[in-house]
Amino acid sequence: MSESEALALEVCGQPIGLGEWLSGAGPESDIVMSTRVRLARNVVEFPFPNRIEGDRQGDLEQFLRDGIAAAPFPDQAPSYLDLDQAPSLDRQCLVERHLISKDHASARGRRGVAIEPAATLSIMVNEEDHLRLQVLRSGFLLDEAWAQIEAADRALEEKLNYAFSPELGYLTSCPTNVGTGLRISVMLHLPALVMTKRIEKVFHAGTNVNLAVRGFYGEGTEALGDFYQISNQVTLGQSELGILQSMAEQVPLIIRYERNMREKLITENRLGLEDRVWRALGLLERARLTTSQEAMGYLSVIRMGIHLGFLDSIPISLVNELFIQTQPGHLQKRAGEALETSVRDELRAAYIRERLAGVL
Amino acid sequence: MSESEALALEVCGQPIGLGEWLSGAGPESDIVMSTRVRLARNVVEFPFPNRIEGDRQGDLEQFLRDGIAAAPFPDQAPSYLDLDQAPSLDRQCLVERHLISKDHASARGRRGVAIEPAATLSIMVNEEDHLRLQVLRSGFLLDEAWAQIEAADRALEEKLNYAFSPELGYLTSCPTNVGTGLRISVMLHLPALVMTKRIEKVFHAGTNVNLAVRGFYGEGTEALGDFYQISNQVTLGQSELGILQSMAEQVPLIIRYERNMREKLITENRLGLEDRVWRALGLLERARLTTSQEAMGYLSVIRMGIHLGFLDSIPISLVNELFIQTQPGHLQKRAGEALETSVRDELRAAYIRERLAGVL
Repeated sequence: MSESEALALEVCGQPIGLGEWLSGAGPESDIVMSTRVRLARNVVEFPFPNRIEGDRQGDLEQFLRDGIAAAPFPDQAPSYLDLDQAPSLDRQCLVERHLISKDHASARGRRGVAIEPAATLSIMVNEEDHLRLQVLRSGFLLDEAWAQIEAADRALEEKLNYAFSPELGYLTSCPTNVGTGLRISVMLHLPALVMTKRIEKVFHAGTNVNLAVRGFYGEGTEALGDFYQISNQVTLGQSELGILQSMAEQVPLIIRYERNMREKLITENRLGLEDRVWRALGLLERARLTTSQEAMGYLSVIRMGIHLGFLDSIPISLVNELFIQTQPGHLQKRAGEALETSVRDELRAAYIRERLAGVL
Repeated sequence: MSESEALALEVCGQPIGLGEWLSGAGPESDIVMSTRVRLARNVVEFPFPNRIEGDRQGDLEQFLRDGIAAAPFPDQAPSYLDLDQAPSLDRQCLVERHLISKDHASARGRRGVAIEPAATLSIMVNEEDHLRLQVLRSGFLLDEAWAQIEAADRALEEKLNYAFSPELGYLTSCPTNVGTGLRISVMLHLPALVMTKRIEKVFHAGTNVNLAVRGFYGEGTEALGDFYQISNQVTLGQSELGILQSMAEQVPLIIRYERNMREKLITENRLGLEDRVWRALGLLERARLTTSQEAMGYLSVIRMGIHLGFLDSIPISLVNELFIQTQPGHLQKRAGEALETSVRDELRAAYIRERLAGVL
């Protein structure tokens, strides 16, 4: 990821990596892009963010920021970024890297995010809740992600008084997060289920076991590049371990279903599938104008092709990285200015060509 | 065209080249693929082919064959191929090379074709008329093609008695060819007129001045790869020079129209046009399955891209040659056997990849 480092965002002079979750090194990486664990936390000294006004918002931000700075994190301490002061392009890049929410990027007022250098741990400050802790890791890695976020949570709890009810659990701004405040999201790459028109069945089955299915950029976003985020919907009345257990049971069923469909496609029409993969590569190698959606579509097919053994010289980490580097914010950040769509399409095509030429 | 020679058809042990018309070396080659001049001739000693029966057909063929062998052609003498004995794949290849008609390939009975080694001159024997002389040359080359066919015609006339009426001119099997027996066809490559949806206007204008518009393989064939054959419809009541003059006036109008539309496309959306050209290249470089129609479509776009200066390492002769080498007959001839469509699509894709890899 040497080239990506060149675009590393700086947070308090500290470079922030593109994200370990793009390495493609985690378990079941052929189908599971990433595992994300999130905890919603609030402190007792202040009202919830949506009920806070004027100077108190600034006081709250400083209070939380001090708490984060003082907390004894077991790994490298996160650096803090004041989002009220950060340029709009930087905020957009953080959204594209899945480090902050779209709402947090576009909101006004005193708010921020603390990010650990490898970008596996991030903490949004003054989003919907006072604190939103997130651990984002490569592949299907529930236990490790959970252990990492639990350790960060404990470190913060040493310096902050969490709002907690013995009856309800952790209190949150929105009732849907009360209890554990835990949301686990697994980003799955399901091109074969899409090609074989089985993806609706997955949604249906997911809803039946209280799993939500969302797109590449979470709630309300499209399933770009055949990526689907599966997450738990219930945070109350279940223990953290219960939620983990439920994901540990359900996700492998989808993984197996996608693997079966890939095998079916190969058995029934291997050459047709190879043709599709190679054409996607040919188009990305040569196109002069590429939309974001088109890039994600072709990268998705190439990603599958690599895992099926059709393409062997392209590192999976490069393809994963391109999903992010070709997003509008990253393209503009690289150019150093805001650009029109048509110029972005040109730069996107050129960037993909250059990166592919480096490995082919 | 070294690789193409490997596939050279043999006629009486004499290799027949793929065709000078594919060299892309003739005048106006950016738009005019080839100029074809054809003369219909019959001898007085026999009835027209459609009225001949039994052994007389064999006698006629031998008679004409002897005449061709004895004629003092100014250039290299043509070699004779007995089409009644020729394998079906060889006949199909001759059609694909525009050296014999589809009807002549699929007909039964004693018939043949004489082909000069460079394949610029060919003479069908016992097609619709006793003799059909053809000269096929690269680019827009009316005068030279006419001079070449006139010389061949004179050489034959020294040994054969043509059926000729002082009032009507040369007599032919079908009344539409009576008179000069001359048909001039110019094969035009008109991708910009197709893209800008102006091609119908060309047809319309052509019909008004008695020009017929046909596809890549002549009468009743589709306009594959944006190629259109423009030819005169009237052979009677006009002198040879009058027909030549009419083509010499009309064709440049279409050439200019196509050039204007190419310029318009570049002015209005150069990058979009480049994108289209490079994508076509990417697809042909990488696809694993390619239909004949698809190959011609992408090759057409690449051909235009080369002439517009977008692609500089691909020789135009290679692209022209690929139009023929990727036809079903040539693919099967190369494989040495009849093949199913799906296998042909695989071989076609592999062949194009190999040839392009040789120059990129």
